Amino acid sequence: MKISFIGAGNVAWHMAQAFEDKGHHICEIYSRSLTNAKALVGKLFDAKAVTSLDFSNSEADLFVLAIKDDAFHIVLNELILPENSILVHTSGTKSLEILSNWQRNIEDDSISVGVFYPLMTFSKSKKLNFAEVPLCLEAENTETEKTIVKLAQEISKIVYLVDTEERKVLHLAAVFSNNFVNHLLGIAQDIMEDNDLEMSLLKPIILETVSKALQAENIHEVQTGPARRGDQKTIKSHLELLKNYPQNEKIYRVMSESVMNYFNPE
Amino acid sequence: MKISFIGAGNVAWHMAQAFEDKGHHICEIYSRSLTNAKALVGKLFDAKAVTSLDFSNSEADLFVLAIKDDAFHIVLNELILPENSILVHTSGTKSLEILSNWQRNIEDDSISVGVFYPLMTFSKSKKLNFAEVPLCLEAENTETEKTIVKLAQEISKIVYLVDTEERKVLHLAAVFSNNFVNHLLGIAQDIMEDNDLEMSLLKPIILETVSKALQAENIHEVQTGPARRGDQKTIKSHLELLKNYPQNEKIYRVMSESVMNYFNPE
Repeated sequence: MKISFIGAGNVAWHMAQAFEDKGHHICEIYSRSLTNAKALVGKLFDAKAVTSLDFSNSEADLFVLAIKDDAFHIVLNELILPENSILVHTSGTKSLEILSNWQRNIEDDSISVGVFYPLMTFSKSKKLNFAEVPLCLEAENTETEKTIVKLAQEISKIVYLVDTEERKVLHLAAVFSNNFVNHLLGIAQDIMEDNDLEMSLLKPIILETVSKALQAENIHEVQTGPARRGDQKTIKSHLELLKNYPQNEKIYRVMSESVMNYFNPE
Repeated sequence: MKISFIGAGNVAWHMAQAFEDKGHHICEIYSRSLTNAKALVGKLFDAKAVTSLDFSNSEADLFVLAIKDDAFHIVLNELILPENSILVHTSGTKSLEILSNWQRNIEDDSISVGVFYPLMTFSKSKKLNFAEVPLCLEAENTETEKTIVKLAQEISKIVYLVDTEERKVLHLAAVFSNNFVNHLLGIAQDIMEDNDLEMSLLKPIILETVSKALQAENIHEVQTGPARRGDQKTIKSHLELLKNYPQNEKIYRVMSESVMNYFNPE
């Protein structure tokens, strides 16, 4: 297929290269910032960096809207696509409807819309195996669904049809298991480095934590630590160590309280 | 060496077997509960399950106190060890001093004390490679230090000398990177299962989260998600999804606030 990306952020960065690796042609990369668009174009075979949202002369069959959620309104307002193309977005929180409404608005029935949500955390600097990225798809009609499922299966082994409500739940679960986990690991790193201890010492327990959780039928059941044991003395001494870090102290309190509540509900 | 364990919990379970695998002889396994002691004895070559803390006739050279922090007082009160033995505890939070005080109390200078703290999360049901478990050691004199360092290096590739204050910090960092991470993953699993979504869909993002964090020079810098972007609309819609889960809602608020504060300090 001929594919263009609207957006040159972390998602576009990895997805565009994954498509190209499977022989698809990336036509245009749009970004408000030409520098950003060019950076991604530089990783691709024959794509063009553009800063206009008028794609009426584009040869692409598929447009991937990979932008921040709060840019949807402004981008959709200006977006012009060629006839008979498909537009998908990659957002975990935006509905399919937002694209259907746009399509009704421009009054071009030949354009069909869908969702192509990768349940993954991407950073430009970190390579990853796209085949392991779960792709959660939704489309407004069966034909478009067929097209994007086929495409998705070329770049990933894990392809699911997921509706807008389910996708929102997936995104919420991803916030807990990625965003918040990353923040906790960042705090652990701060604690180590503030005390001149090597972060590498924590590496084995972090790897084991995840390995154990992913094997557990019920992850709460493999919970260990002072809160699990209701060990108030240790909790108190940890809070003492955190007294000059009010934000971390708050997290410690709320997490410990939640663990204790899980095992001894009031 | 001849080694006895006081305690038959998760730590003793893995450590006793690791010692035996390297040719050491496990003499006794003490537990208040004979059933627990026997369960571990059943995994060992020739150990004896005991429920008395009088080890005066034991042949062991080393006694490993692997009990809950709040059992120290009662166990040390009753503990009788043979002359010329070494007593180490495995706690992240207890000082070396608690054992030196005990030793002064029993007035036996021939017994020396130390700490043998494994920076790891253990569950009986989950096998692990003990060679990858960081062992953090402390001893009251150089001779004992030498003995336990040599022993530690036989069962693990990662052996550090760590004093009591540093060990407390390590334990605190482990609470953030193990206990709290596990709890978040448990919540993510609850969210998935409450919505009939397969937990396996989250596996790739969880693995990538850790892989990315452990490669990052500064883990906060690889933070992604709504809080990182200051995306209030998505945060609000997530809080709406959590409105019937007050504990999870509280965690969501506190974690998001902390991420936002990190990137936009007030």
